[in-house]
Amino acid sequence: MKNYTKISAKNKNEARIELHDKLNLTGSEISLNILPSDASVPFVHAHKENEEVYFVIKGTGTFVIDEEKIELNEGDFIKISPMGKRQIFAGENGITYLCIQTKTDSLTQYTADDAIIC
Amino acid sequence: MKNYTKISAKNKNEARIELHDKLNLTGSEISLNILPSDASVPFVHAHKENEEVYFVIKGTGTFVIDEEKIELNEGDFIKISPMGKRQIFAGENGITYLCIQTKTDSLTQYTADDAIIC
Repeated sequence: MKNYTKISAKNKNEARIELHDKLNLTGSEISLNILPSDASVPFVHAHKENEEVYFVIKGTGTFVIDEEKIELNEGDFIKISPMGKRQIFAGENGITYLCIQTKTDSLTQYTADDAIIC
Repeated sequence: MKNYTKISAKNKNEARIELHDKLNLTGSEISLNILPSDASVPFVHAHKENEEVYFVIKGTGTFVIDEEKIELNEGDFIKISPMGKRQIFAGENGITYLCIQTKTDSLTQYTADDAIIC
Protein backbone atom coordinates (compact mmCIF):
# COMPACT_ATOMS: atom_id res chain seq x y z
CA MET A 1 0.00 0.00 0.00
CA LYS A 2 1.30 3.45 -0.85
CA ASN A 3 2.23 5.90 1.88
CA TYR A 4 0.33 8.74 0.20
CA THR A 5 -3.03 9.76 -1.18
CA LYS A 6 -3.60 12.69 -3.55
CA ILE A 7 -6.46 14.63 -5.04
CA SER A 8 -6.62 17.73 -7.17
CA ALA A 9 -9.13 20.46 -6.46
CA LYS A 10 -8.11 22.57 -9.44
CA ASN A 11 -10.96 23.61 -11.71
CA LYS A 12 -13.47 22.14 -9.28
CA ASN A 13 -16.02 24.74 -8.39
CA GLU A 14 -17.85 22.80 -5.72
CA ALA A 15 -19.04 24.90 -2.79
CA ARG A 16 -17.31 22.52 -0.37
CA ILE A 17 -14.89 19.63 -0.74
CA GLU A 18 -14.32 17.57 2.42
CA LEU A 19 -11.00 15.75 2.40
CA HIS A 20 -11.15 13.43 5.41
CA ASP A 21 -12.53 10.43 3.55
CA LYS A 22 -10.99 11.29 0.16
CA LEU A 23 -7.45 11.38 1.59
CA ASN A 24 -7.89 8.90 4.48
CA LEU A 25 -7.01 11.58 7.03
CA THR A 26 -6.69 10.43 10.64
CA GLY A 27 -5.53 13.61 12.40
CA SER A 28 -7.68 16.29 10.79
CA GLU A 29 -10.66 17.15 8.67
CA ILE A 30 -9.80 19.68 5.99
CA SER A 31 -12.36 21.32 3.75
CA LEU A 32 -11.96 23.60 0.74
CA ASN A 33 -14.81 26.08 0.64
CA ILE A 34 -16.06 28.59 -1.92
CA LEU A 35 -18.61 31.17 -0.79
CA PRO A 36 -19.94 33.34 -3.60
CA SER A 37 -20.37 37.10 -3.45
CA ASP A 38 -22.09 38.26 -0.26
CA ALA A 39 -23.05 34.72 0.81
CA SER A 40 -22.47 33.30 4.28
CA VAL A 41 -22.42 30.01 6.09
CA PRO A 42 -26.06 30.10 7.24
CA PHE A 43 -25.52 29.46 10.95
CA VAL A 44 -23.35 30.38 13.94
CA HIS A 45 -21.43 27.44 15.37
CA ALA A 46 -18.89 26.42 17.99
CA HIS A 47 -17.18 23.07 18.63
CA LYS A 48 -17.09 20.47 21.37
CA GLU A 49 -13.38 19.59 21.25
CA ASN A 50 -11.88 20.67 17.94
CA GLU A 51 -9.98 23.83 17.13
CA GLU A 52 -10.22 25.21 13.61
CA VAL A 53 -7.72 27.06 11.45
CA TYR A 54 -9.05 29.04 8.48
CA PHE A 55 -6.76 30.08 5.63
CA VAL A 56 -7.99 32.57 3.03
CA ILE A 57 -6.79 31.40 -0.39
CA LYS A 58 -8.43 34.23 -2.30
CA GLY A 59 -11.10 36.88 -2.00
CA THR A 60 -12.26 38.78 1.03
CA GLY A 61 -14.84 38.42 3.75
CA THR A 62 -15.70 38.91 7.37
CA PHE A 63 -15.61 36.59 10.32
CA VAL A 64 -17.93 37.23 13.21
CA ILE A 65 -16.43 35.54 16.29
CA ASP A 66 -18.18 36.04 19.64
CA GLU A 67 -19.94 39.02 18.05
CA GLU A 68 -16.66 40.73 17.02
CA LYS A 69 -16.22 41.48 13.30
CA ILE A 70 -12.85 40.49 11.83
CA GLU A 71 -11.86 41.43 8.29
CA LEU A 72 -10.56 38.60 6.08
CA ASN A 73 -8.10 39.01 3.23
CA GLU A 74 -6.05 36.71 1.05
CA GLY A 75 -3.23 35.14 3.03
CA ASP A 76 -4.90 35.43 6.44
CA PHE A 77 -4.79 32.58 8.94
CA ILE A 78 -7.23 32.49 11.86
CA LYS A 79 -7.25 29.89 14.62
CA ILE A 80 -10.48 29.59 16.59
CA SER A 81 -10.72 27.75 19.90
CA PRO A 82 -13.62 25.31 20.29
CA MET A 83 -15.91 27.63 22.24
CA GLY A 84 -15.62 30.59 19.85
CA LYS A 85 -19.04 31.27 18.27
CA ARG A 86 -18.25 31.83 14.62
CA GLN A 87 -19.87 32.70 11.31
CA ILE A 88 -18.11 33.55 8.05
CA PHE A 89 -19.40 35.96 5.40
CA ALA A 90 -18.05 36.44 1.87
CA GLY A 91 -17.16 39.88 0.53
CA GLU A 92 -18.36 41.28 -2.77
CA ASN A 93 -16.09 39.04 -4.86
CA GLY A 94 -16.61 35.91 -2.81
CA ILE A 95 -14.07 34.05 -0.71
CA THR A 96 -12.20 30.76 -1.10
CA TYR A 97 -10.77 29.26 2.07
CA LEU A 98 -9.50 26.15 3.78
CA CYS A 99 -10.89 25.03 7.13
CA ILE A 100 -8.64 22.67 9.12
CA GLN A 101 -10.21 20.91 12.10
CA THR A 102 -8.02 19.16 14.68
CA LYS A 103 -8.57 17.92 18.20
CA THR A 104 -7.46 20.42 20.85
CA ASP A 105 -4.22 19.40 22.61
CA SER A 106 -3.71 16.37 20.35
CA LEU A 107 -0.31 17.35 18.94
CA THR A 108 2.48 15.99 21.12
CA GLN A 109 5.57 16.73 19.01
CA TYR A 110 6.28 18.21 15.59
CA THR A 111 8.85 19.18 12.98
CA ALA A 112 12.38 18.47 14.27
CA ASP A 113 11.08 16.44 17.24
CA ASP A 114 8.92 14.24 15.04
CA ALA A 115 11.06 14.04 11.91
CA ILE A 116 13.29 11.17 10.85
CA ILE A 117 15.99 12.39 8.46
CA CYS A 118 16.71 9.62 5.96
CA MET B 1 -9.18 36.16 26.55
CA LYS B 2 -10.30 36.03 22.95
CA ASN B 3 -11.26 32.75 21.35
CA TYR B 4 -9.21 33.46 18.23
CA THR B 5 -5.75 34.39 17.00
CA LYS B 6 -4.99 35.78 13.54
CA ILE B 7 -2.00 36.55 11.39
CA SER B 8 -1.65 37.69 7.81
CA ALA B 9 0.92 36.13 5.51
CA LYS B 10 0.10 38.42 2.59
CA ASN B 11 3.07 40.19 1.07
CA LYS B 12 5.42 38.21 3.28
CA ASN B 13 8.01 36.52 1.17
CA GLU B 14 9.67 34.48 3.86
CA ALA B 15 10.79 31.03 2.76
CA ARG B 16 8.89 29.45 5.65
CA ILE B 17 6.40 30.73 8.21
CA GLU B 18 5.62 28.32 11.06
CA LEU B 19 2.25 28.97 12.66
CA HIS B 20 2.20 26.74 15.76
CA ASP B 21 3.54 29.37 18.15
CA LYS B 22 2.20 32.40 16.28
CA LEU B 23 -1.40 31.12 16.45
CA ASN B 24 -1.17 29.07 19.66
CA LEU B 25 -2.07 25.87 17.81
CA THR B 26 -2.58 22.75 19.93
CA GLY B 27 -3.72 20.19 17.34
CA SER B 28 -1.42 20.88 14.41
CA GLU B 29 1.68 22.57 13.11
CA ILE B 30 1.01 24.42 9.88
CA SER B 31 3.72 26.02 7.78
CA LEU B 32 3.53 28.25 4.72
CA ASN B 33 6.47 27.52 2.44
CA ILE B 34 7.91 29.21 -0.65
CA LEU B 35 10.48 27.29 -2.68
CA PRO B 36 12.01 29.31 -5.50
CA SER B 37 12.55 28.07 -9.03
CA ASP B 38 14.17 24.63 -9.16
CA ALA B 39 14.96 24.60 -5.41
CA SER B 40 14.18 21.70 -3.10
CA VAL B 41 13.95 20.92 0.57
CA PRO B 42 17.54 19.68 0.97
CA PHE B 43 16.81 16.33 2.63
CA VAL B 44 14.55 13.27 2.52
CA HIS B 45 12.47 12.83 5.67
CA ALA B 46 9.80 10.71 7.29
CA HIS B 47 7.95 11.12 10.61
CA LYS B 48 7.65 9.25 13.87
CA GLU B 49 3.93 9.73 14.52
CA ASN B 50 2.61 12.65 12.46
CA GLU B 51 0.83 12.57 9.12
CA GLU B 52 1.29 15.52 6.80
CA VAL B 53 -1.07 17.13 4.30
CA TYR B 54 0.47 19.35 1.62
CA PHE B 55 -1.67 21.86 -0.30
CA VAL B 56 -0.25 23.59 -3.37
CA ILE B 57 -1.35 27.24 -3.30
CA LYS B 58 0.48 28.19 -6.48
CA GLY B 59 3.21 27.05 -8.81
CA THR B 60 4.30 23.55 -9.70
CA GLY B 61 6.75 20.98 -8.47
CA THR B 62 7.48 17.34 -7.86
CA PHE B 63 7.18 15.19 -4.79
CA VAL B 64 9.39 12.16 -4.48
CA ILE B 65 7.70 9.77 -2.04
CA ASP B 66 9.29 6.35 -1.48
CA GLU B 67 11.23 6.95 -4.71
CA GLU B 68 8.06 7.55 -6.78
CA LYS B 69 7.80 10.91 -8.59
CA ILE B 70 4.47 12.71 -8.21
CA GLU B 71 3.68 15.87 -10.16
CA LEU B 72 2.38 18.83 -8.15
CA ASN B 73 0.07 21.52 -9.47
CA GLU B 74 -1.96 24.34 -8.00
CA GLY B 75 -4.92 23.00 -6.03
CA ASP B 76 -3.39 19.60 -5.26
CA PHE B 77 -3.70 18.03 -1.83
CA ILE B 78 -1.38 15.18 -0.79
CA LYS B 79 -1.57 13.29 2.49
CA ILE B 80 1.56 11.40 3.49
CA SER B 81 1.59 8.74 6.21
CA PRO B 82 4.40 8.98 8.78
CA MET B 83 6.66 6.36 7.22
CA GLY B 84 6.58 7.81 3.68
CA LYS B 85 10.07 9.01 2.74
CA ARG B 86 9.46 12.39 1.12
CA GLN B 87 11.26 15.24 -0.60
CA ILE B 88 9.66 18.18 -2.44
CA PHE B 89 11.16 19.96 -5.44
CA ALA B 90 9.97 23.24 -6.97
CA GLY B 91 9.25 23.56 -10.68
CA GLU B 92 10.63 26.27 -12.93
CA ASN B 93 8.39 29.00 -11.49
CA GLY B 94 8.73 27.93 -7.88
CA ILE B 95 6.05 26.53 -5.61
CA THR B 96 4.08 27.93 -2.66
CA TYR B 97 2.47 25.38 -0.37
CA LEU B 98 1.03 24.68 3.05
CA CYS B 99 2.23 21.75 5.14
CA ILE B 100 -0.18 20.61 7.86
CA GLN B 101 1.20 18.20 10.49
CA THR B 102 -1.15 16.33 12.81
CA LYS B 103 -0.79 13.29 15.03
CA THR B 104 -1.93 10.08 13.36
CA ASP B 105 -5.28 8.79 14.70
CA SER B 106 -5.79 11.84 16.91
CA LEU B 107 -9.10 13.03 15.42
CA THR B 108 -12.01 11.41 17.23
CA GLN B 109 -14.98 13.33 15.79
CA TYR B 110 -15.49 16.19 13.36
CA THR B 111 -17.91 18.50 11.57
CA ALA B 112 -21.52 17.57 12.46
CA ASP B 113 -20.42 15.27 15.31
CA ASP B 114 -18.24 17.94 16.88
CA ALA B 115 -20.25 21.07 16.08
CA ILE B 116 -22.53 22.99 18.42
CA ILE B 117 -25.06 25.01 16.45
CA CYS B 118 -25.76 28.23 18.34
